[in-house]
Amino acid sequence: MIKIGDSASLSKTFSDADVRKFAEIAGDKNPVHLDDEYAAKTQFKHRLVHGMLAAGLISAVLGTELPGEGSIYLSQSIHFRAPVFIGDTITAKITVLKMREDKPIITLETVCKNQDDVVVIDGEAVVIATN
Amino acid sequence: MIKIGDSASLSKTFSDADVRKFAEIAGDKNPVHLDDEYAAKTQFKHRLVHGMLAAGLISAVLGTELPGEGSIYLSQSIHFRAPVFIGDTITAKITVLKMREDKPIITLETVCKNQDDVVVIDGEAVVIATN
Repeated sequence: MIKIGDSASLSKTFSDADVRKFAEIAGDKNPVHLDDEYAAKTQFKHRLVHGMLAAGLISAVLGTELPGEGSIYLSQSIHFRAPVFIGDTITAKITVLKMREDKPIITLETVCKNQDDVVVIDGEAVVIATN
Repeated sequence: MIKIGDSASLSKTFSDADVRKFAEIAGDKNPVHLDDEYAAKTQFKHRLVHGMLAAGLISAVLGTELPGEGSIYLSQSIHFRAPVFIGDTITAKITVLKMREDKPIITLETVCKNQDDVVVIDGEAVVIATN
């Protein structure tokens, strides 16, 4: 049984190939993700991983770990706190914050940190646990 | 100059190949996205496009159309209102709701509809327009 405080996490290193594939499948060809020369002229200096790709790691934990298969995603808030660079290893950790008593609806804290323990994304997810 | 009420949109049909690539790059191998037999036993009956992949179309509009290149994503709220099935054509439309006077920070309404005009995702984005 899921209870408040339960947590799960997944880590992934985002490669240049991942970013190019996301640009293609989501249609986001912003050059800050794809063009070294362009990125060098921005405040970030280096190319960025798409925020929504990094946030995809949150949905991966929800859909495969906690509550896992069968969970239905109702909502997600995302705050992009710091840039995610190509080659960064991101760990998405989710923690059960609230559970409704009448329905299997769970609110989770969702935090992504990089390899230097910097929070790059945070927010909350609401899901239905069907299992 | 960007003003309140300005809008932009992008459409994309999400294919099986798109979903399999997203499963790989975001690490979300939930079988509701990948396995026809599993999906047939769920309330959805058919395989779903990952919500975060469909939501990626919102970031595509922000990053390429309005405010476009150079915009910095601060936050996004996402409500998953209805399932997105493989083969659905999703149109992400964003509309400027609010603009701060002291800084180039813009709040936008973000809505994704399918080919039947059903809202599948809605929410709000906050971005910095640097251009």
